[in-house]
Amino acid sequence: MRKSKEEIAEIYRGVQDHICAELTRHDGEGHFSEDQWDRPEGGGGRTRIFTQGKIIEKGGVAFSAVHGKTPEKILKKLKLQEADFFATGVSIVLHPKNPHVPIIHMNIRYFEMDNGTFWFGGGIDLTPHYVIPAEARHFHTEVKKVCDQYETGAYDKFKKWADDYFFIKHRNETRGIGGIFYDHLKPTTDEDFTKTLDFSVAIGHLFPDIYGYFMQKNHSKPFTSTEQAWQNLRRGRYVEFNLVWDAGTKFGLDTNGRTESILMSMPPHAGWEYMHTPAEGSAEAKTLAWLKKDIDWVNWKS
Amino acid sequence: MRKSKEEIAEIYRGVQDHICAELTRHDGEGHFSEDQWDRPEGGGGRTRIFTQGKIIEKGGVAFSAVHGKTPEKILKKLKLQEADFFATGVSIVLHPKNPHVPIIHMNIRYFEMDNGTFWFGGGIDLTPHYVIPAEARHFHTEVKKVCDQYETGAYDKFKKWADDYFFIKHRNETRGIGGIFYDHLKPTTDEDFTKTLDFSVAIGHLFPDIYGYFMQKNHSKPFTSTEQAWQNLRRGRYVEFNLVWDAGTKFGLDTNGRTESILMSMPPHAGWEYMHTPAEGSAEAKTLAWLKKDIDWVNWKS
Repeated sequence: MRKSKEEIAEIYRGVQDHICAELTRHDGEGHFSEDQWDRPEGGGGRTRIFTQGKIIEKGGVAFSAVHGKTPEKILKKLKLQEADFFATGVSIVLHPKNPHVPIIHMNIRYFEMDNGTFWFGGGIDLTPHYVIPAEARHFHTEVKKVCDQYETGAYDKFKKWADDYFFIKHRNETRGIGGIFYDHLKPTTDEDFTKTLDFSVAIGHLFPDIYGYFMQKNHSKPFTSTEQAWQNLRRGRYVEFNLVWDAGTKFGLDTNGRTESILMSMPPHAGWEYMHTPAEGSAEAKTLAWLKKDIDWVNWKS
Repeated sequence: MRKSKEEIAEIYRGVQDHICAELTRHDGEGHFSEDQWDRPEGGGGRTRIFTQGKIIEKGGVAFSAVHGKTPEKILKKLKLQEADFFATGVSIVLHPKNPHVPIIHMNIRYFEMDNGTFWFGGGIDLTPHYVIPAEARHFHTEVKKVCDQYETGAYDKFKKWADDYFFIKHRNETRGIGGIFYDHLKPTTDEDFTKTLDFSVAIGHLFPDIYGYFMQKNHSKPFTSTEQAWQNLRRGRYVEFNLVWDAGTKFGLDTNGRTESILMSMPPHAGWEYMHTPAEGSAEAKTLAWLKKDIDWVNWKS
C-alpha cells in the first residue's frame, strides 16, 4: 500500500524533528525557535530558525504542507490540467560562523494533484567557502551510499543534475561542490513509491550526520579576517544564485509564498567587491578553480 | 536635425565625465578607477568604480555603447523584427558609508535599431535607509523641476511609473521613496527628439547636484551600531529588488552582459535577519511606513 499524502507529511514532520534535535546536539549551544504559520489558501507550516549557535550563525529547518488550487504558473509550466494540489516538504539552509565549515542545503518534497499526478523531488548540496578536495570526496561518498541503496545509477544521474542546477550562470561557476538534485520522480508501482519515499527520508537522515561531521571537524579551526571577508564574498554568490537562478525561490516569491520562510536561506551577512580576484596560488584561487561542473569527487585522488 | 546615435553616445560619455568629476569633488577623498571593456559581439564601455571615499563606500558610474544583433529576448518581448541594434547609456548606483545618507540610482539610455525603431529610457530614484519626509520632498521637488521643463504632466506619469517599477513585490514595500522612471519614449518629430535627449542629459546633470546635497547635509551625522545594522538590512532589500525584480539586471544577466558592470549595484555589505520587526514608534518602523506607493512627496506637509 502506498502511503497517503497525509502520512507522507507526517513522516516529513518527523524528519524535521529529527534534524532539529541532531543539529541542536551538534551545535551544543544554540536552539531552534518555531513559527507556525497558515497559508490563506490552505495548509501551512512550521519554520524553525536556529539562533545563538556556537557553530551555526544563521539557519532554518522548515516544514510545510500546503494545499489548494494549483498555481497557474505550475499548470502552465508543466502543461497540466487544472486541479487541486497538495505539497509537503522539508527545506534547510545553514550558514556557519567559521569560514572553514561549509554552507549546506537540503530539500525533500512530495507533490500530488487530485487528478492522480504526483512526484518526488529533493536534493542535498554543499557550498564550502574553501573547497578541500578530501572533504568534498567524503561528502559525495556519503551521498552516493544513500543513492546506491535507492537505485543503481541514481547517484550519477542526480549528481549531474545538481551540477547543472546549482550553477551560477552569470559567473560561470558552480554554487559549491554540488551533491545531488532530483525532481519529478514518478514511481509507477507501490513498491517503487515506497522506495522513493524511503530514499527522501534517508537523505533527510543523512543530513545531520554529514553536517555534524563537518561541524565537529572544522568549527574550532582558527580563521583570519581575510578568510572572513572571503566568506562574505562567497555568501554574496550564494545570494546571487538563490535570488537570480534558484527555481524554488523564484517560484515561491512569484506565487505569494511565505517570504520569510523562503528567504531564511539568506546569509546573516554578505559582501560584494567589484572585480575581486584572489591572488594566484592562494586558497581562495584554488577554491574558485574547484567550482566547476563534472568533477568526479568520489574518485578524487590527491 | 536629430543627433546621430554616435553623437548621443558622445554626449552620454560627457555626462559620465561630468558626474564623476562632481562626485569626486563632493566626496573630497575618494577617486574613480576606470575599466575599459569590449563586448565580443560589438561595442563596449567604461566602468568607473569609486574607491577609498570619505562619504561613498561603494559605487560605480558606468557608460556603455554596444551594438550588434538584437538579442532574441528583446525581439520576442517587444515583438520586433530581427535587426541590428545600438544601445548607449549611463548607469549609476552609490552606497554611502553613513546610514543617514541615502542610496541613489540613476540611469539614462538610448536604444536604436537599424530598421528605424528607437526609444529613450531612464530614471532617478532615492533609497534612504531612514526616510526623512522633508528630504524626500526636496528630492521629488528637484526631480519635478527637471520634468516640468521637459513636458507638462511628465513628472506625475514618470513618478507613478517609478512607484510601480521600484517595488519589492514579495515584501509589499517600495525600494525607497521612488523618483522617476520612464521607458520606450519615442519622440515623433526632430524637435521632440532633441527635447527628449536634452531631458535625459538634464537628469544626468541633476544627479550630482541632488546627491551632493544629501552627501554634504548628512555624511557627518553620527550613527549608532543599531543604525548601521539597519542600513545592512536595507541594503539586503536593495539586493532583493535588484536580483529578483529589476528588469535591467535580469536582462543583463540573462543575455550574457558584463556581470561585474551589472552587479556594481550590489552593496559592499548586506544583511538578513529572519522576521526582523522594528520596535513600534522607532525611526526604523517609521521608515517602513513610508515605503509605500503613491505618496505625494512634492506636496508633503509636516
